[in-house]
Amino acid sequence: MFDFKLLATSHGARAGEFVTPHGVIETPVFAPVGTNATVKAVTPEQINEVGTSLLLANTYHLYLRPGHEIVHNQGGLHRFMNWAGPILTDSGGFQVFSLSDSNKIDDDGVTFYSHIDGSAHRFDPEVAIEIQNKLGADIIMAFDQCPEPYDRKNNEKALARTHDWAVRCRNAHRNPKQALFGIVQGGTFADLRQESASFIAQLELPGNAIGGLSVGETKEELNTMTRIVTDILPSNKPRYLMGVGSPIDLVYGVENGVDIFDCVLPTRLARNAAAMTRTKQLNMKNAIHSNDNKPVDEDCRCYCCKHFSRAYLRHLCKAKEILGATLLTIHNLHMLHTLMADMRVVILNGSFEKWKNSFVDGWEK
Amino acid sequence: MFDFKLLATSHGARAGEFVTPHGVIETPVFAPVGTNATVKAVTPEQINEVGTSLLLANTYHLYLRPGHEIVHNQGGLHRFMNWAGPILTDSGGFQVFSLSDSNKIDDDGVTFYSHIDGSAHRFDPEVAIEIQNKLGADIIMAFDQCPEPYDRKNNEKALARTHDWAVRCRNAHRNPKQALFGIVQGGTFADLRQESASFIAQLELPGNAIGGLSVGETKEELNTMTRIVTDILPSNKPRYLMGVGSPIDLVYGVENGVDIFDCVLPTRLARNAAAMTRTKQLNMKNAIHSNDNKPVDEDCRCYCCKHFSRAYLRHLCKAKEILGATLLTIHNLHMLHTLMADMRVVILNGSFEKWKNSFVDGWEK
Repeated sequence: MFDFKLLATSHGARAGEFVTPHGVIETPVFAPVGTNATVKAVTPEQINEVGTSLLLANTYHLYLRPGHEIVHNQGGLHRFMNWAGPILTDSGGFQVFSLSDSNKIDDDGVTFYSHIDGSAHRFDPEVAIEIQNKLGADIIMAFDQCPEPYDRKNNEKALARTHDWAVRCRNAHRNPKQALFGIVQGGTFADLRQESASFIAQLELPGNAIGGLSVGETKEELNTMTRIVTDILPSNKPRYLMGVGSPIDLVYGVENGVDIFDCVLPTRLARNAAAMTRTKQLNMKNAIHSNDNKPVDEDCRCYCCKHFSRAYLRHLCKAKEILGATLLTIHNLHMLHTLMADMRVVILNGSFEKWKNSFVDGWEK
Repeated sequence: MFDFKLLATSHGARAGEFVTPHGVIETPVFAPVGTNATVKAVTPEQINEVGTSLLLANTYHLYLRPGHEIVHNQGGLHRFMNWAGPILTDSGGFQVFSLSDSNKIDDDGVTFYSHIDGSAHRFDPEVAIEIQNKLGADIIMAFDQCPEPYDRKNNEKALARTHDWAVRCRNAHRNPKQALFGIVQGGTFADLRQESASFIAQLELPGNAIGGLSVGETKEELNTMTRIVTDILPSNKPRYLMGVGSPIDLVYGVENGVDIFDCVLPTRLARNAAAMTRTKQLNMKNAIHSNDNKPVDEDCRCYCCKHFSRAYLRHLCKAKEILGATLLTIHNLHMLHTLMADMRVVILNGSFEKWKNSFVDGWEK
């Protein structure tokens, strides 16, 4: 269980297989976000059809509503949301800091107030693991602190906590059917990132994640920090870059040796009338689409592109019809999954660099 | 084309087949409403799976957005919304009176202001037919005036107009691939209903509708007026009761000799967290469902009931997740379609009355 087989590398990019209780994840992989135990605007059947293998759900949200005990009583996340494939839950740390009305952090944990009803709650490493044990995802995350990326002092303090909490999470976690991943922090500071990668690596967890990026730093910093960390992380464990999901960032992430990604981008864009392609983003509300009978992408084989015109999608988006969000979610997820699958092919046949250069050339800045 | 074959009658209820260019409609039939050329919250694939045969779309909405010319340029409604089965469009009359910001009616037509942007427009019988010709539905409706049901004076005046306009619609309609249905009005007044039914019947259109009901009158009045009209309408043409869609109203409507129904109820209820069953309506937000692993209806075979618990649906509805609306739309439509299909079976085997009594006994007032 949780064996990671590295099948090939090409110009830094890796193709592998990660074995979980709910199936083998072929990497590199993009995981759509299902915050409230649903990927917004689509059914599990539709998620399966677009080629999703791994799904993410949010511990913070599910703890607050419906509550991890209810999910547990209902047979765990897989049964609850009717998803037979692998699931990953985050630790709740990121949301506690970004979503809750206010929070008080100390070396032991965090007290916060629900964004739903203002009620007070406390998370610490042991609680975060207990909740995730009850939710029952295949991959669970260590409880960490994700500070603002340019504040050195705060990052140093947060790093010490994150490392201490990672050890406490490892000690608290007892379910062999769930793989606990550690999280590397350190903001935009190369030495902190190196220190953190070394510390997390020596915990010898079944996988390692890179947190605290895609939170406001530059693209160059994102890529530099990623590379610094993957240079240190063990190659025989999967590497997960949290919160990354634009096509170009995924390509650079893969080049930098990352195996797993997640992001709300494709689903959030879809609900805001934006369609993703391999060269740019289309605003489907634009008048230019109003009488265009072409699909979003003529080369795409998703349900949206097979059956519906840009004219229809524009109409749905202008009329604020749910189907617009559904069809664009299907398209955007299918687009990212085929992008990942194509990268896997060129990694396996050793031509990743050529493919990547061509992709970068075609990408509209 | 547009042949209506009456296969059986049982205690007033009728089972038949209505031939359209996009397939045979087995009656009695319930048509979900797809106002903006989409049944809200579901894909055409999902609509097909729940057993929908006939869909309704709204002329008023599609005329204003995206415009009937665009729908026409995009290959007509069927191609535009990717629905291969029969479609019915209303005339826009009802919406002009109920939705537009204000309107001025005269004997020739109606001037109204868009509920979207306040722009001024004018509908008359010829315009309503031209728009519906461009939209390309299989069944189109005469332009009528639907007044408040208890105002005798207004109903008399509106009836004269409705009859005059029905003749003008018949004269304006030229496309043999679209069946024009006349509409009987007359409010809650038996003599006006009789007069209207006789007038509309002698136009010898391929189908006849009953309008101006389900707009605030009592259940008794709804059923009495329906029966008065169906007693006069020819038995060899389909009869369509506009705007009716609760399970009990559908059962009485079928008993009163109606073949076609439409209503926003199942889809609107779904978006408001209500599940329909054969005995009552369930509010899926109720705390009683929070840890209930049973489906909405244990006897139901829809995608929602096969895969998802009440606990999950409650969670989705509380969290305002789109999937809650999608799953309940699937369930509610499936529920109404199987109700209609079951009625067809008992009509064909001559046991409708017994079935109806049992249904009415089980229905929670």
